[in-house]
Amino acid sequence: MSMTSPVTCQKIKEKQNSYAPIFEDLIATDSNNNFALSYSINAIEDHSNDNFVLSNLNALLESHHSYPIKGSTYLDRNTNFHVKSSNSEIFNILQAAIAFKLAGKNHKALKLLEHATAVAPDNPDVLNWYGEFLEQIRHDVVTADELYFKALTHSPTHAAALVNHKRTSPLVDRLDLDLFKSIDKKKDYLKEKFDSYNFETLKKQAYYLHIYHTVGIEGNTMTVEQLRTLLETGQVIQGKSIIEHNEVLGLQLALKYVKSLARKEYITVDDILQMHKRVMGHVDPLTSGIFRDTKVFVGRHIPPPSEKVPELMESYANWLNSDEARNMHPVRYAALAHYKLVDIHPFVDGNGRTSRLIMNLILLRGGYPPIMILKEQRDKYYDALNVANVGDVRPFVRFIAHCTLQILDMYIQGTKMLVLDDHSTNTDGTQIINY
Amino acid sequence: MSMTSPVTCQKIKEKQNSYAPIFEDLIATDSNNNFALSYSINAIEDHSNDNFVLSNLNALLESHHSYPIKGSTYLDRNTNFHVKSSNSEIFNILQAAIAFKLAGKNHKALKLLEHATAVAPDNPDVLNWYGEFLEQIRHDVVTADELYFKALTHSPTHAAALVNHKRTSPLVDRLDLDLFKSIDKKKDYLKEKFDSYNFETLKKQAYYLHIYHTVGIEGNTMTVEQLRTLLETGQVIQGKSIIEHNEVLGLQLALKYVKSLARKEYITVDDILQMHKRVMGHVDPLTSGIFRDTKVFVGRHIPPPSEKVPELMESYANWLNSDEARNMHPVRYAALAHYKLVDIHPFVDGNGRTSRLIMNLILLRGGYPPIMILKEQRDKYYDALNVANVGDVRPFVRFIAHCTLQILDMYIQGTKMLVLDDHSTNTDGTQIINY
Repeated sequence: MSMTSPVTCQKIKEKQNSYAPIFEDLIATDSNNNFALSYSINAIEDHSNDNFVLSNLNALLESHHSYPIKGSTYLDRNTNFHVKSSNSEIFNILQAAIAFKLAGKNHKALKLLEHATAVAPDNPDVLNWYGEFLEQIRHDVVTADELYFKALTHSPTHAAALVNHKRTSPLVDRLDLDLFKSIDKKKDYLKEKFDSYNFETLKKQAYYLHIYHTVGIEGNTMTVEQLRTLLETGQVIQGKSIIEHNEVLGLQLALKYVKSLARKEYITVDDILQMHKRVMGHVDPLTSGIFRDTKVFVGRHIPPPSEKVPELMESYANWLNSDEARNMHPVRYAALAHYKLVDIHPFVDGNGRTSRLIMNLILLRGGYPPIMILKEQRDKYYDALNVANVGDVRPFVRFIAHCTLQILDMYIQGTKMLVLDDHSTNTDGTQIINY
Repeated sequence: MSMTSPVTCQKIKEKQNSYAPIFEDLIATDSNNNFALSYSINAIEDHSNDNFVLSNLNALLESHHSYPIKGSTYLDRNTNFHVKSSNSEIFNILQAAIAFKLAGKNHKALKLLEHATAVAPDNPDVLNWYGEFLEQIRHDVVTADELYFKALTHSPTHAAALVNHKRTSPLVDRLDLDLFKSIDKKKDYLKEKFDSYNFETLKKQAYYLHIYHTVGIEGNTMTVEQLRTLLETGQVIQGKSIIEHNEVLGLQLALKYVKSLARKEYITVDDILQMHKRVMGHVDPLTSGIFRDTKVFVGRHIPPPSEKVPELMESYANWLNSDEARNMHPVRYAALAHYKLVDIHPFVDGNGRTSRLIMNLILLRGGYPPIMILKEQRDKYYDALNVANVGDVRPFVRFIAHCTLQILDMYIQGTKMLVLDDHSTNTDGTQIINY
């Protein structure tokens, strides 16, 4: 595998060392692994207070999850309108929508445009019109830009979409930059607090929530409480399958491994195989840690043939360790690392979980806390990945950026809660958050 | 790895092909593995009749387990007498025992001798006297021979033990040969029946019992019913640890692999690693399928240092595939293969289970059904392995021979039960077992 030059490595090293502290301690693994060594059953720890914190945090996270990709209804999986319609029918709907818009009846116009995009999701006129509507009436430049781009993927010479996209693209770039800036501001704020406050309970809760959401996205039905009991006592949860149990054990083992890689200079193909071995090892000892040897399907997308996987993974690792990647904003770097890995889809199963771990490894190395993609964000997450597949990776980067904001807010809110709880150190009741 | 010469291979091949049928179908694996593919929960099959058969079989097996090593009280782990006594005290006990024996009070003499062996288990005089008593009064030549041998391991020039052992050794060899003959007679009888009777229920029960006993010996507390539910539905058993669940899954996977090796010409080191990967993979994905890299202790016995393991395993595989081994009686070959592997102790954990699988692979290839070492036989099993460690492997071979008889009887009794149950094919009620 080719590496970057020694001089550049030195530069990157310095750059990385400037991040302090690395949030690797947010992965609370070492203390929970005792049960693996014997049959003994430990008493469940007293979490009476933790539970209060936990439920507040989860509520906070769930209220959060509605904003990441605004107005992405045109990709909504739950729609019932996926039927073919004739062009003239679409044309009629569009005409009516325009008429409503001109008459100032924006709500009715929106309804018709939503209907049109559901009926004809690939029609460039519909996409372009819907974009214009969202841009002008809703001032939603980001979604509008995504729609123009999508129109252009279906009709690369579409005049109106070209003009529109040329206008919105730099605006969106600037908005994304602002997003990264606000992320870094919160990260720096949190970093400062990280030394002075005791995050123990919060870290532990985040750790369990992390496992909960990343296995939950793949269909695991265990609750946070259940998986915590499993990990702390080694005892099984009635009514849950053995596979669900082993998925949880796998994540614990994998997170421990991610933590061990946080200060490693380069990420190799073998690191990724080792990560996957841990993610899937308990579930399937025979396919874990090795590349797939069969064709796979991910929805309508067909990943590269299995014989190409080793070569593609070498290129992927080269990219991961390249100056190009390492000089990006860490959130973009992490999001792209995720997207590129699911795109190769090197494993039979566990590709999503492994990709999310690689993403989090990069965030950790960049000085960010590991992020969670909530079970409730599943559809938005997959939609953004689908859009990346058809050529526009920005919505996915944006989605990951919002998830980063979300976890930073969780810790910052958690700090607040912990401080407000502790009257002995903060008796004047002043608000200490002022970012 | 060196192989036997092509000419010899041909000979062995012919010899092996003469065994028909191989009892590989007694491992009923393929049908039970569906749950591993999805979250779907299959209904538990109706086993109302199976349970009746099962409980009868288990009762039969348990009544059986008392005979394998007769009179081996001198090795009894449960004794409370393991305290040092002076030689004069032992001498007095022996004198008293001899006096009782001469007076015809054999019961009292026996009690004293048992006491003496418990107090001074390494005293050659005591061992020799106890042997003579068992030989003369109980006509137990086999145990007597074991005691003379043990006396000689502690005092190689012990005159009386030398004379005694010289007399009993050929007698025991002849008895062992008779044992092998009676095994082969029952095996041939069963082989004949195997084509004409439906062993389906019996095979399935034996399969679950097999897993039950081999994980049970290592401390797993699941019942046969519980592990069957786990394997058939993929649902967990409340109150059992996740490790216990994963041990059961491991055995299922490993037995499937053993079955796939049953018709393979040679057993390689990699086959053994693959077997271990399956046995322990669900429990510990990271140490399964690889040799240990640490020192281990097995009771008071210290297996070879880890750096010697790869080399020792190569020699072991060479021995497994050698003419010398393959020309032995299969039961002796299987028992030695087991003993030699636990002696190397190549893995951190799962050595016993892997050794029992190798043993059963050899039995399968030799035309014998896979055997079970019952949980209840645990102490006798370990004692026989300990005796092998101090130089006499014959008690362990004999123990395995008795286990082989035990499983053959189980199938033959099962046949009887099935035939007596089925009045439509056997209305005259004649006894069809006449070996």
